[in-house]
Amino acid sequence: MPSPSELPAATSGWRDLIGLALAEDVGNGDITTLSTVPAEVTATGVLLAKEAGVLSGIDVTEAVFATVDSDIDFGATCANGERIDAGATIARLSGPARSLLTAERTALNILQRLSGVATVTARYVAATEGTRAKIVDTRKTTPGMRMLEKRAVLHGGGANHRFGLADGVLIKDNHLAAIGGDHPVRDAIRSARALAPHTMKIEVEVTTLDELDEALATGADIVMLDNMDTDKMTDAVQRRDRVSPGVLLEASGGITLARIPEIAATGVDLISAGALTHSATALDISLDFALNR
Amino acid sequence: MPSPSELPAATSGWRDLIGLALAEDVGNGDITTLSTVPAEVTATGVLLAKEAGVLSGIDVTEAVFATVDSDIDFGATCANGERIDAGATIARLSGPARSLLTAERTALNILQRLSGVATVTARYVAATEGTRAKIVDTRKTTPGMRMLEKRAVLHGGGANHRFGLADGVLIKDNHLAAIGGDHPVRDAIRSARALAPHTMKIEVEVTTLDELDEALATGADIVMLDNMDTDKMTDAVQRRDRVSPGVLLEASGGITLARIPEIAATGVDLISAGALTHSATALDISLDFALNR
Amino acid sequence: MPSPSELPAATSGWRDLIGLALAEDVGNGDITTLSTVPAEVTATGVLLAKEAGVLSGIDVTEAVFATVDSDIDFGATCANGERIDAGATIARLSGPARSLLTAERTALNILQRLSGVATVTARYVAATEGTRAKIVDTRKTTPGMRMLEKRAVLHGGGANHRFGLADGVLIKDNHLAAIGGDHPVRDAIRSARALAPHTMKIEVEVTTLDELDEALATGADIVMLDNMDTDKMTDAVQRRDRVSPGVLLEASGGITLARIPEIAATGVDLISAGALTHSATALDISLDFALNR
Amino acid sequence: MPSPSELPAATSGWRDLIGLALAEDVGNGDITTLSTVPAEVTATGVLLAKEAGVLSGIDVTEAVFATVDSDIDFGATCANGERIDAGATIARLSGPARSLLTAERTALNILQRLSGVATVTARYVAATEGTRAKIVDTRKTTPGMRMLEKRAVLHGGGANHRFGLADGVLIKDNHLAAIGGDHPVRDAIRSARALAPHTMKIEVEVTTLDELDEALATGADIVMLDNMDTDKMTDAVQRRDRVSPGVLLEASGGITLARIPEIAATGVDLISAGALTHSATALDISLDFALNR
Amino acid sequence: MPSPSELPAATSGWRDLIGLALAEDVGNGDITTLSTVPAEVTATGVLLAKEAGVLSGIDVTEAVFATVDSDIDFGATCANGERIDAGATIARLSGPARSLLTAERTALNILQRLSGVATVTARYVAATEGTRAKIVDTRKTTPGMRMLEKRAVLHGGGANHRFGLADGVLIKDNHLAAIGGDHPVRDAIRSARALAPHTMKIEVEVTTLDELDEALATGADIVMLDNMDTDKMTDAVQRRDRVSPGVLLEASGGITLARIPEIAATGVDLISAGALTHSATALDISLDFALNR
Amino acid sequence: MPSPSELPAATSGWRDLIGLALAEDVGNGDITTLSTVPAEVTATGVLLAKEAGVLSGIDVTEAVFATVDSDIDFGATCANGERIDAGATIARLSGPARSLLTAERTALNILQRLSGVATVTARYVAATEGTRAKIVDTRKTTPGMRMLEKRAVLHGGGANHRFGLADGVLIKDNHLAAIGGDHPVRDAIRSARALAPHTMKIEVEVTTLDELDEALATGADIVMLDNMDTDKMTDAVQRRDRVSPGVLLEASGGITLARIPEIAATGVDLISAGALTHSATALDISLDFALNR
Repeated sequence: MPSPSELPAATSGWRDLIGLALAEDVGNGDITTLSTVPAEVTATGVLLAKEAGVLSGIDVTEAVFATVDSDIDFGATCANGERIDAGATIARLSGPARSLLTAERTALNILQRLSGVATVTARYVAATEGTRAKIVDTRKTTPGMRMLEKRAVLHGGGANHRFGLADGVLIKDNHLAAIGGDHPVRDAIRSARALAPHTMKIEVEVTTLDELDEALATGADIVMLDNMDTDKMTDAVQRRDRVSPGVLLEASGGITLARIPEIAATGVDLISAGALTHSATALDISLDFALNR
Repeated sequence: MPSPSELPAATSGWRDLIGLALAEDVGNGDITTLSTVPAEVTATGVLLAKEAGVLSGIDVTEAVFATVDSDIDFGATCANGERIDAGATIARLSGPARSLLTAERTALNILQRLSGVATVTARYVAATEGTRAKIVDTRKTTPGMRMLEKRAVLHGGGANHRFGLADGVLIKDNHLAAIGGDHPVRDAIRSARALAPHTMKIEVEVTTLDELDEALATGADIVMLDNMDTDKMTDAVQRRDRVSPGVLLEASGGITLARIPEIAATGVDLISAGALTHSATALDISLDFALNR
Repeated sequence: MPSPSELPAATSGWRDLIGLALAEDVGNGDITTLSTVPAEVTATGVLLAKEAGVLSGIDVTEAVFATVDSDIDFGATCANGERIDAGATIARLSGPARSLLTAERTALNILQRLSGVATVTARYVAATEGTRAKIVDTRKTTPGMRMLEKRAVLHGGGANHRFGLADGVLIKDNHLAAIGGDHPVRDAIRSARALAPHTMKIEVEVTTLDELDEALATGADIVMLDNMDTDKMTDAVQRRDRVSPGVLLEASGGITLARIPEIAATGVDLISAGALTHSATALDISLDFALNR
Repeated sequence: MPSPSELPAATSGWRDLIGLALAEDVGNGDITTLSTVPAEVTATGVLLAKEAGVLSGIDVTEAVFATVDSDIDFGATCANGERIDAGATIARLSGPARSLLTAERTALNILQRLSGVATVTARYVAATEGTRAKIVDTRKTTPGMRMLEKRAVLHGGGANHRFGLADGVLIKDNHLAAIGGDHPVRDAIRSARALAPHTMKIEVEVTTLDELDEALATGADIVMLDNMDTDKMTDAVQRRDRVSPGVLLEASGGITLARIPEIAATGVDLISAGALTHSATALDISLDFALNR
Repeated sequence: MPSPSELPAATSGWRDLIGLALAEDVGNGDITTLSTVPAEVTATGVLLAKEAGVLSGIDVTEAVFATVDSDIDFGATCANGERIDAGATIARLSGPARSLLTAERTALNILQRLSGVATVTARYVAATEGTRAKIVDTRKTTPGMRMLEKRAVLHGGGANHRFGLADGVLIKDNHLAAIGGDHPVRDAIRSARALAPHTMKIEVEVTTLDELDEALATGADIVMLDNMDTDKMTDAVQRRDRVSPGVLLEASGGITLARIPEIAATGVDLISAGALTHSATALDISLDFALNR
Repeated sequence: MPSPSELPAATSGWRDLIGLALAEDVGNGDITTLSTVPAEVTATGVLLAKEAGVLSGIDVTEAVFATVDSDIDFGATCANGERIDAGATIARLSGPARSLLTAERTALNILQRLSGVATVTARYVAATEGTRAKIVDTRKTTPGMRMLEKRAVLHGGGANHRFGLADGVLIKDNHLAAIGGDHPVRDAIRSARALAPHTMKIEVEVTTLDELDEALATGADIVMLDNMDTDKMTDAVQRRDRVSPGVLLEASGGITLARIPEIAATGVDLISAGALTHSATALDISLDFALNR
């Protein structure tokens, strides 16, 4: 089956990130390596998982090494989205020792963070088992890494919410306050429908069941249930099923891993969790070298 | 007393990050806000701490809003490095509602992450109380955010290790392996001393006390004790005090918050912890709006 | 009513275009002006419409002059989206003569092209009068000017299709061919639904009424009727009204201004025309100066 | 014979344009293609002329495909500057189907626009047949595409005027007004001669035959006859032939294709037409695919 | 009288250079100043000439300080192109001490180099006194500083040759060799005349008087006399005066300050010297501070 | 033995410089070459030293040619840091004649300047023979070329001082003035020690022997002796040897080649000279071509 989780070859955003990261790490040169490792020494290396998790960013990692030195040979033995055990070999590398040492930290910083996101996502996804609910990300991503982190969410089995403010309509509390009046949900949906491109779905955030009813009646495509408790969400799902079965319901706000099973059981379609990206910690991965003499 | 924890006015690295983050979030425009909030509506906002911690990045946050709209008025009520309680007001904002809504997420993403780093650093620093040990960071930072994250470590009361590969010599196991021979520690220090700028200190990583002795004898300026247990570190400190009291000892590897007190008690000068940056989670901060009508 | 047709303050794409255009025109300096016009001479200028049309890009034009010299005073007397007659004054300028002369061509090149797009769009929109059909643009835009040209379409009264490949799903003939099998329309819609973000609508291009039926049955959100004649489109509208009245139908392919009335009369919701952008010609606008002595 | 109509290998301006165009079209990825076309499918494509014209930009087109995917094989069957009939095959492509689909629109947008410029130029050039007059372009080009459009004029058989304000002196009405006095043409030419690099020719715009005489007497290298009727231009040519046969005369202002034969017949050397670039429409070219299975 | 020696407001090349220079000097921050100078200390400074010369780049210098800190007040007391004595005050500055210290070196590096170029140019120009010869620069400039160095040549009283390969035709020995045949000078001039824009003059380099005759006979606009001795140049001037008095002659190759008077006396129009830029040394200028307490 | 004098593969600063230099020289194309040299002509070239010196930048030179045309074959016959005689062949090139001609000037401008720096450095180094003194550079480098010029200093046998303000502490007179009080040297060193990263050495500039004593007593790592005469420096060395033999002494201010032997004889460790970079002149190197027919 096709998959959208590939780096777009045509745009260089992720290459810019590699350049930025190498520039801030390497700067005017790796003075330690240049003064202790002779230019002609070659080495082989192994990327090893130090803990279990889900891999993401192995292709970006390869690109980091290739950017530093095109003579580095990089052979991945695991794929993006693959579950890896502690101790697993992720990739084998060989090439000039200086280049491998210079690229090491930048490559690991990226791979560990992205795999951390994929790993935490997989935990959330596992907690939805047996339900229809999908785990989706938010815009609470690391500055400069949004595309890569959203891809890591896919690798972890989650799904993507909109990429940014320009590719989807999501009417939140502050927009409703700005519209004002007695029927802000209705009026905001209508205003967005009139002005946004016809290709965009209209999502609206509601905090009460009355607002939900108004959203369903006005033709919202997706309704975000903000900070509702489980009972209220169950009620919301029933109302939706009755009135507009095609509308998607998204649980949001105060989402923790512990609460996923009960929330998923309410019948909501989507559960969005900022923690997938804003609080993922690095997956422990190391690069071990052996010098060739 | 002067402080190095200010954004360098002369270089635009952190401005590039703001541009990158806004570009990936706002792109072709905030379609929701543009289609629901009239251009003439103004609003006031309050940045609120939802949990206690240490603030970092309030100046970068101000710059994000200023980048989106120079008509936004931003008044910080807390300073970088300040401890804030849950519920504290961090800043007050006012300006065009559209601009505030458009900048919100990017500003929060940066402020939450940097304050997260400062907060975890402060916890590590608190655990060294009563000892001479300083908590220092590593190069395990978020790609593109190194300078800002290292500044957050300062705000949390920690100190900085080198910024990158170009501004310090740190001879690690792979460099020693590349030098080879019977006395790699000695030979690597000599090689680095001969070739690196005279302004740089020479730091070398050792795993045994014999290597430590060799490093001290050859005139290393700093010795990193890699993955040593507490007893071995205590022994190392004693040897250092005897032979070269001016040399700094740095504990590194397997550093957790729980182990800081015992490690600090050994008498090492520095404890470096990757977790300050690679595994910090976002500090919960929100932006609440009130629209002016 | 709010309007999405504003330049996003937070992203600098259109500023990059101004920089690029000025760089290629001014380069190392306007040698003619520098060698014939004394630095202290000031001038006033008037932007005049030499033919009737719809204005677009007056704000970008102002930004061009401001980029060249912040001492230029620019007062627009017409707004984006406004119909202007031949002879109308569009803006008044005053400032250093050298700066006005240096910025003139770049400013006019941008304003004339964008107003050309708005003007041709308005002609297409006028031809839909009395119908529900909206005129929408395509991705056949000038390289580097997509956002500005899509905004010009809004100024001309048209509506926007997706901005690029990343913010909408549009399954075309080649995608169907790639899916293959007996039911490519059905299978492609399902595949896209499974993998694309839930915030995106699914649009599919069909060339036969059978394919339309399959698209409607599978839950497409929008169906593009490719190169159909009027009768077939009328039939398509009826089938849609019967089966899935919420689905949007878009006429595409071989769209000319002359055919708009009959196509609009079929009841389709959207008519997309590449000619709005790929074949718009410049609206004739001049900048007349009077030097102050 | 050598030809100046090649892309300068040493500067990356046109590569920047490709990057810009791909970024705005592809952005975070071609979600449709990624979710409907399997990664392993390959395809062959044919670039077909849908109408007759003159080709320009086939090398830039090849670069677009190569930027998206270096595995795409691109074989041009027509050359820049070649006249092509409706139905002609311009190039054959093969490679990964995903990459071909992703690059298609950007490649066509560039090729169609440049070939449109070459085609309209060729029409103007044909209208000068039997005379000495050359058709030349202006600075009324698409922002960001000046070099490519000026090259398209060469491909259409025209010649280039200056590339920008820095590589030639062209004294226009506003410069003359700034100089003022009784002999602005004379004084402006002298001022430019004194201050401009000695490598530059001095061109001056005149609206009367008296001004022409003054320009010839002061040693102008080129004189632009602005908005003169045919009789006046004929007179101008005779005066030039009498006084300074080496000076070039350029007809400008109100130039349309219909007027070219009579203007060319006056004996002017150059006819400059903004319409070559500011009002060229896209040449209809399509990319047809066949998927390999 | 107007002057071309101003920074083009519309292009940012020189601003890029300032950014590049500050980035390489300041990087992650001026650690010395940040750790020894309190943020609130202000200072006044004086730019002093330590040796006599001609000033160039005072406006760029002001821009360096403004880039570092817009709160710095900069008042120039000398102008570009002004002769300054040893001990002269060039500018007075005041502002935050940290910012002044951080900007100091970058500002001086630029000002000293450009003033060095202006100063050596002025020496060459003085040596032409009483003759018609102009001193002109070459393309032997510092990478990245061409425009600023060519402006410094103007400030020193010299004149500019072409800015780069794109804004003038200069046929050199290797081009003649490529054309080959019995009359390469004639054939190359004709080829260039046919293909180069009509706005460009044709300059050709000759090494013999026969080649000069051929160049004059074929209508070269400028002839460069390469490495000729004084007698040969005198002869060349006489031939030119006889045949084509409007053609410019340029002496080039082996030009030293000592030889300028005799070369200028031959009657050549132009003398080009690479040493103006490739071998200028820095003019000694210092920045003295007084801290305000 | 390893060497730090290599271009860091991971950062593109020097590639940016090549791009900048080519852009300003080649711009819209080498019109002379394009109109006189047929595309199919190939040539061979030889880089020749016209005077004796030390080579630096041969790898950057190769990169310039490769940037212009990857079909150019470049074979260096001398290495960076090698002493070359007048007449020596430095490299042999072959490839398309157009590309070689277009790249020539940019390549030579870089190679001549860097070799000029290496050559003057070698003269200074030779003058220290028989002493322990090292010749070191300063921050008085060409804007945009700092890293390359510092590398050229290494090639000439010198050593590097800090690269910029961020990678070393150097307390100068103005910092001492800002600290104020009775013991500014002591207080500034303590302040820097407390706040700067532990990896950095502390250097302080002193003008009197009393200040030197204070610096030694407070634990400065390096002391810069500013503008001291030879006797005073000799005295300073003796005091250092007595009190803190590990501290480095650096002579600075008023350093000329003539004074190097006597200064070196005082026993100082380092002599820093701005003239290595701010007043180096180009080493004369030419590129001679032979066209293949």
